[in-house]
Amino acid sequence: MEFNMRPIGVIHTPFTDKRETPIQPARSQAAGQVEVLEAYADGLADLEGFSHIILLYVFNRAEEYALRVKLFLDDQPRGLFATRYPSRPNPIGLSIVRLVSRRENTLHILGADMLDGTPLLDIKPYVPDFDAHPEAATGWYDHRRADNQDGRTPKDLQPHTPL
Amino acid sequence: MEFNMRPIGVIHTPFTDKRETPIQPARSQAAGQVEVLEAYADGLADLEGFSHIILLYVFNRAEEYALRVKLFLDDQPRGLFATRYPSRPNPIGLSIVRLVSRRENTLHILGADMLDGTPLLDIKPYVPDFDAHPEAATGWYDHRRADNQDGRTPKDLQPHTPL
Repeated sequence: MEFNMRPIGVIHTPFTDKRETPIQPARSQAAGQVEVLEAYADGLADLEGFSHIILLYVFNRAEEYALRVKLFLDDQPRGLFATRYPSRPNPIGLSIVRLVSRRENTLHILGADMLDGTPLLDIKPYVPDFDAHPEAATGWYDHRRADNQDGRTPKDLQPHTPL
Repeated sequence: MEFNMRPIGVIHTPFTDKRETPIQPARSQAAGQVEVLEAYADGLADLEGFSHIILLYVFNRAEEYALRVKLFLDDQPRGLFATRYPSRPNPIGLSIVRLVSRRENTLHILGADMLDGTPLLDIKPYVPDFDAHPEAATGWYDHRRADNQDGRTPKDLQPHTPL
């Protein structure tokens, strides 16, 4: 069974090198532009009222995956699905970003954390009733915070990019 | 440009008919089982500490998409990307569910809102620092709430399933 996905657009960001991508979107204030192909532009109607949107995209520059990965600042390998690491069996990235404005088929966003030229697969509205769980427990991210004696918090840690 | 996605497992839920799926995961208490293929089981390590996980899957029973859709209880068509409607150019579904437990390659979840037999593409840990934006504005969802004189809130509304 196989499902073929075709990009509906491209995401422009200031990041051209994997090592330069920011920590993650909650910290990033980087501006980006989501350029949706003309053929899909009509589907962007009504999006402006949302302050946040969910972008699904392809980690098209990720390397082959491994089922255990050792991340920045962590002391041991973790199960891949317990991380946001980009190399995955289906390398789909997910970022929640601020929607600043729309000009025709271009969305101006804040909080970009993906590489420039990233192929866009889908846009969904962010709805706190479905998507916001501020009290959720975060397993090894928390442990990692506790273990790090330099006082870094999970906000300092990099879920996406290898280091 | 095309990206081929292959399921890494299947999601079992009580829902076999599109019309029976619950309002959405924030309301659903339905139990489900995420059965990950043996080949990927090792990637589930360390997931147990997370109370919530993000499931990405294929809306494999969705019909052909349209760029404007009229949803349940709404009075006018909306841009597709301003909805969570299942028929999309790339029919990828996203649900945030509670992780109850793991037994080997099976995750027991609460808050299932997808159909039984849904092909699983990816599992990501839910991390509030990146993913929780409780104050996000929700555009037409809010307007729709205000407009509905029967007092239904957005929680009563169905983002996924057509009616």
